[in-house]
Amino acid sequence: MNILLLSNSTNHGETYMNHAKEKIAQFLGNRKRVLFIPYAGVSISYDAYTETVQAALAEHGIEIQGIHQFDSAQTAIKQAEAIAVGGGNTFRLVQQLYEQGVLDLIRTRVHDGCPFVGWSAGSNVAGPTLCTTNDMPIVEPRSFDCLNLVPFQINPHYTEDTIPNHGGESRKARLEEYICLNTNDVVCLPEGSWLEVNESGIAFDGGEGFKVYQHPDQVLDFEKHAASQYFNRFKKFTSN
Amino acid sequence: MNILLLSNSTNHGETYMNHAKEKIAQFLGNRKRVLFIPYAGVSISYDAYTETVQAALAEHGIEIQGIHQFDSAQTAIKQAEAIAVGGGNTFRLVQQLYEQGVLDLIRTRVHDGCPFVGWSAGSNVAGPTLCTTNDMPIVEPRSFDCLNLVPFQINPHYTEDTIPNHGGESRKARLEEYICLNTNDVVCLPEGSWLEVNESGIAFDGGEGFKVYQHPDQVLDFEKHAASQYFNRFKKFTSN
Repeated sequence: MNILLLSNSTNHGETYMNHAKEKIAQFLGNRKRVLFIPYAGVSISYDAYTETVQAALAEHGIEIQGIHQFDSAQTAIKQAEAIAVGGGNTFRLVQQLYEQGVLDLIRTRVHDGCPFVGWSAGSNVAGPTLCTTNDMPIVEPRSFDCLNLVPFQINPHYTEDTIPNHGGESRKARLEEYICLNTNDVVCLPEGSWLEVNESGIAFDGGEGFKVYQHPDQVLDFEKHAASQYFNRFKKFTSN
Repeated sequence: MNILLLSNSTNHGETYMNHAKEKIAQFLGNRKRVLFIPYAGVSISYDAYTETVQAALAEHGIEIQGIHQFDSAQTAIKQAEAIAVGGGNTFRLVQQLYEQGVLDLIRTRVHDGCPFVGWSAGSNVAGPTLCTTNDMPIVEPRSFDCLNLVPFQINPHYTEDTIPNHGGESRKARLEEYICLNTNDVVCLPEGSWLEVNESGIAFDGGEGFKVYQHPDQVLDFEKHAASQYFNRFKKFTSN
């Protein structure tokens, strides 16, 4: 499998994809035509979203085609050279992946070697379920089950900061509740960082380190150089 | 119907229920025995949660009984003098309301006049769906459909503040996405505030005002004294 999972599209104060586009281009290599899935977009049209991504990646000679521009979404997946899933609302994304009947097809294609790039909600859906999204459940998808391309949950946009003078739960408290009730690990990606999965395993980059929340109540810290200490346990899963 | 929906249990920097207990006691009047539903609690045991609520309300002579302490949750609902639903994780709460088979029973009892108090997740579930919760979807409930005691969505802990230097979506952006895809209004309750529903209609208190997000893209502002301008439209619904 060849998978790139970015925490976010836009670092605070930077332009769209500024921190990510070089990495995406390097990951795609000579596959220059990318099928883009804009289903997580809600207050932006699929056309506008696709153009935004195209504009960001044009300098690397990458050509973006929106899945909505094809007569058949399923055929588009079957013929894609590479697949990119953009951020937005995870519930909307998962609802539409089911509606369009492409969830299983994407999984099959990626297992067969088709490169997959996701950011934010698009990274969330690479895990077993959507259960560790930060998004509001604005629509009800058929199921919370997702692509299961990696054997752990992703929490994108990870931060331990909170809204000042506000009583709502912190991200930390929310994730501690998740691992209390679930046995999947949660890999937390701070903004700017990403995971890359290929035949050599899983690597972390773009940040100093990451946290893993583990059932029932453990929070582990890994610095970038020690990421393999954590990810080596998944060799069997990712070599499929 | 007699319904009290609080945004939150604990104002920032205050003790548990400090801002709310007098209002709850006044709302309950001479009904001193309250059936408490702690299902939203995740990292706290149902016993500990029930004791915390009991301790907060003891000074008003209120006696709290946890629904988990009864042989039958359904019988407990049928016999309750008043029902209180606590905050925590909304997805866990809704999952358990379905699991225990009490969702429809609670709705029926409240329509028959049994007083209902909710805070945070407990207020969320008084609306038609859980779609405007702020919580993480740590478990998958059978459905997003909720009690539908009020004909609009609730957003508790409402704030327009954001995490400093963070790229994740603001609450405002999330709710704007909700109204883009849904026709229910969203009544946003800042921390400290509440709604009270009775035969005279719906009143807002505990804060200076509230916002209403309305399909497809409107955000309305109501000061406390002008709340009836908004809520009068629901007279028919709440007089049932």
